[in-house]
Amino acid sequence: MHKYIPILDWGRRYNTMALSNDLVAALIVTIMLIPQSLAYALLAGLPPEAGLYASILPIILYAIFGTSRALAVGPVAVVSLLTATAIGNVAQAGTAGYAIAALTLAFLSGSFLVLMGVLRLGFLANFLSHPVIAGFITASGILIATSQIKHILGISAEGHTLPEVFLSLFHNLSQANMLTASIGIAVMAFLFWVRKGAKPFLIRLGLPARLSDFGAKAGPVLAVFVSTLAVFGFDLISKGVAVVGEVPQSLPPLTMPDLSPELVSSLLVPAILISVIGFVESISVAQTLAARKRQRIDPDQELIGLGAANLGAAFTGGFPVTGGFSRSVVNYDAGAETPAAGIFTAIGLAVAAVTITPIIFFLPKATLAATIIVAVLSLVDFSILSKTWNYSKADFAAVSITMLVTLTLGVEIGVTSGVAVSILVHLYKTSRPHMAIVGQVPNSEHFRNILRHDVETHSDILTLRVDESLYFANARYLEDQLYDLAAQRPNLKHVILMCPAVNAIDMSALHSLEEINERLALSGIKFHLSEVKGPVMDRLLNVDFPKHISGKIYLSQHQAITDLNREPKSDQTFSRRASDQYDPA
Amino acid sequence: MHKYIPILDWGRRYNTMALSNDLVAALIVTIMLIPQSLAYALLAGLPPEAGLYASILPIILYAIFGTSRALAVGPVAVVSLLTATAIGNVAQAGTAGYAIAALTLAFLSGSFLVLMGVLRLGFLANFLSHPVIAGFITASGILIATSQIKHILGISAEGHTLPEVFLSLFHNLSQANMLTASIGIAVMAFLFWVRKGAKPFLIRLGLPARLSDFGAKAGPVLAVFVSTLAVFGFDLISKGVAVVGEVPQSLPPLTMPDLSPELVSSLLVPAILISVIGFVESISVAQTLAARKRQRIDPDQELIGLGAANLGAAFTGGFPVTGGFSRSVVNYDAGAETPAAGIFTAIGLAVAAVTITPIIFFLPKATLAATIIVAVLSLVDFSILSKTWNYSKADFAAVSITMLVTLTLGVEIGVTSGVAVSILVHLYKTSRPHMAIVGQVPNSEHFRNILRHDVETHSDILTLRVDESLYFANARYLEDQLYDLAAQRPNLKHVILMCPAVNAIDMSALHSLEEINERLALSGIKFHLSEVKGPVMDRLLNVDFPKHISGKIYLSQHQAITDLNREPKSDQTFSRRASDQYDPA
Repeated sequence: MHKYIPILDWGRRYNTMALSNDLVAALIVTIMLIPQSLAYALLAGLPPEAGLYASILPIILYAIFGTSRALAVGPVAVVSLLTATAIGNVAQAGTAGYAIAALTLAFLSGSFLVLMGVLRLGFLANFLSHPVIAGFITASGILIATSQIKHILGISAEGHTLPEVFLSLFHNLSQANMLTASIGIAVMAFLFWVRKGAKPFLIRLGLPARLSDFGAKAGPVLAVFVSTLAVFGFDLISKGVAVVGEVPQSLPPLTMPDLSPELVSSLLVPAILISVIGFVESISVAQTLAARKRQRIDPDQELIGLGAANLGAAFTGGFPVTGGFSRSVVNYDAGAETPAAGIFTAIGLAVAAVTITPIIFFLPKATLAATIIVAVLSLVDFSILSKTWNYSKADFAAVSITMLVTLTLGVEIGVTSGVAVSILVHLYKTSRPHMAIVGQVPNSEHFRNILRHDVETHSDILTLRVDESLYFANARYLEDQLYDLAAQRPNLKHVILMCPAVNAIDMSALHSLEEINERLALSGIKFHLSEVKGPVMDRLLNVDFPKHISGKIYLSQHQAITDLNREPKSDQTFSRRASDQYDPA
Repeated sequence: MHKYIPILDWGRRYNTMALSNDLVAALIVTIMLIPQSLAYALLAGLPPEAGLYASILPIILYAIFGTSRALAVGPVAVVSLLTATAIGNVAQAGTAGYAIAALTLAFLSGSFLVLMGVLRLGFLANFLSHPVIAGFITASGILIATSQIKHILGISAEGHTLPEVFLSLFHNLSQANMLTASIGIAVMAFLFWVRKGAKPFLIRLGLPARLSDFGAKAGPVLAVFVSTLAVFGFDLISKGVAVVGEVPQSLPPLTMPDLSPELVSSLLVPAILISVIGFVESISVAQTLAARKRQRIDPDQELIGLGAANLGAAFTGGFPVTGGFSRSVVNYDAGAETPAAGIFTAIGLAVAAVTITPIIFFLPKATLAATIIVAVLSLVDFSILSKTWNYSKADFAAVSITMLVTLTLGVEIGVTSGVAVSILVHLYKTSRPHMAIVGQVPNSEHFRNILRHDVETHSDILTLRVDESLYFANARYLEDQLYDLAAQRPNLKHVILMCPAVNAIDMSALHSLEEINERLALSGIKFHLSEVKGPVMDRLLNVDFPKHISGKIYLSQHQAITDLNREPKSDQTFSRRASDQYDPA
């Protein structure tokens, strides 16, 4: 029971010390989350309050079901972008259908995460290789930043890919509002400075380090406050500055996702992508923070925690959420000791939802856009390109294709092609395993590559060592190689496949071994195996392979060579009961 | 040059002996191919002459570019079924658009094969694992046989899946023509008998073995002849027996495929499937026959040979072709020595195309359907189910999903889901590699699994051995395992990852090693590697990994343990220049 509801575990041991630490952390995170939640709702194409709602119940549900002590769940940049793309295909932004589709997406994503957790399918997330994620996040960061330029300039622009957005921006550039642009650029400049310069500046002013740090975290709130005040004080709305506008002053409402078959079927694939990408991002943050205190993260339980959070978002007017990097680090650094910090943050945001919304009316969209741009540009990191280039060209191909496709054709196809390329590249690499023809090191029981060592061979015996497990991607390659080698050697009588590095033989490879056996037999060559590992041999025995093989299966290569050399060259009454030779112990 | 046009090689050495052998083989194959070609055209939904045309130029082109001495190229059952399904989606059977779409499909398939050959992408065919192919061929055989029942019964039926076809047959059953059904069932019974009984029967009648064999091969032609004669003699057309009807009496016409973008884009995926499936079938036949004479098949050149054959089909009124199993075996058994036998077969079929077509008018469709059913039922083999069940449940899953989806949802989605399941299952299996915590065998330099051997360990040192290459599918699993192990051991100071079985580390796994290194360092644990293979170490050096790691990289595990035990427990001035430790020689 405790395993599935971690709160039962840490809840019992909760004390005043932890309470005070959690309260401080919650205060700092709440202040940070208010502008962030509003901004990511804007990015997802939803009304700003959806961002607040998506941060309240989801945080509480994660605190109950999740295993990380410090993870802060809520809307994050990449998931919000994916949300905008997915819903943009089924509804018009700003309509009621759009907001309901966001609920459906959160519901599907939550259900899929819970299902993966219950079925312990967390390994599916492994399909997203590191280069694909890195390339995708960088490309998404660029896409997100460009998508916000329209708010900074006060113009309209459309599209989900870089060329579309740029073309659209360029087309409407003449309508730019200078006042809006001034606010946007000023806030961006301020926020960039806050990131690096605010803390040292406050310390130089004489504030204690901890308070300075807090001050720096409050930078975005200050930007929101000042720019809102400016709009209100100077009546900038009449001068064309776009603001957030009317926001209902309420706690998260009870909402129902639309589960009609056509909406579900068109959002299913995006929901799966969002789930997997969100999970990978979240688990990586959770593990980093857990490692610092030697705590444990259970990936399958994390799936359930994140799934519950998304289901919560679906029923309380939110949209898909996941564990965010920056907010979690802030939560951890601020001293959060237990998930109770998350619960207090949720309470703080709920208070905000019922109090500050009248002020938010005057908040310029340009300020929110600036917040987003500054946040996502920290995601953009091209170093993965040079790193993979140096390390492995295959991985470089995966990164660059992911980036290029994401930027030019869109996020969903981008990440999908990245996954496809990774798998393709992996299969290609293992499809041509390293093989060596080996001979005997004189006066020893060792066998080595004939190209690298001075070894003894026999013209009628060929020994090939394969340095890889045999499976469908390389089974036919092995066949081709063996047939070629046999065709080149007219005196050949015996082929020995030496398997010390073969950890597994799947059905395709078994079929290939049977074909090899049969085809070599057609040209009068006997096929033997040596040094087969125990578990592999067990499977071969299951299907009576040792009885079908024309030659024998030897425990050691030395035994094989000794036996085959002893055999009189004209003797054709070779034992077929190869399994006699093998000692499975 | 000879490498790309094999005819230049065998053509120079051609002699009278080979000529006479090739002529005999060509005669036998021609007689066998006439009914087969007509029948597969019917299966593909095309006029019967298309089957003859698809066997003339393609055979000649394969003889020029292919590497197999005995492979006979032409329409085959599974490819014809795939053709019918693909074209059925874009045009109505019997229309001119349908025949042109078949040309387009052949053109796309030929181009794709040539492209794969030129780019040496034959490894793509490895995606089709043996269980997937076996399951797909059995399911296709069943689908094809059921699709022909309508011709046997003389009723109409529609659909591309088992439930659809059965429903449709059941619905129209009352319209069955008894005369047609009698012909169809009689021909089927005769052909089944011919397969097993004709040769022994003719030998018992006193005929020499070779002639008896030839007689048995001529069985289908006899069935065609007798049933055609019956229709003509008893005027069965007026009694409702459906016949082939008007067939133009001509050599293959010059035709042009329709390359309009919308047709190309809707046929591209089917064309790729047809190419890959046809290639896999063909290469397997070619290799079996080549092995008997220790000849060599070059898979990449085979792609070009088959591609040329399909391009030939596209421009001469044919449809997609590949190397057929039964006809190739007949060709080989009849003594074909060189691809010239194929050229003579083509000439024979061309003669047939301009002479026998008036006779074909009276050929009952039921006879052709019976020919198809008898041919494809030999493809149906459920033993793959029990074999995979015994050998590996993962492979069993792949077979059964392929079969089930092919039968119920169709051929294209069937083979695609088979491929997806194979890849998924492979990634799943390698995503949880075998790992062992190892300790030192007392008074030796050997390290063994602590669960199986009596070994020495240290409470502050943990050594984990991984028995698999590290890549994206298992990188995070390694992380999870290591974090768990570290979290359970409060006194831990050193973690050593022992890598004697790690043949490769991809970028994702490198990233995981870096994360492990960093996260262990956060909790005060040093991370070391031991027994890293040479090529893997070279890559790690490329990205300066040895400089980032908190611990060292040791050549041997024994060295690692000795060094770490020697270290005074309070000493924190550990050398960071780990690369000093590694001798890449």
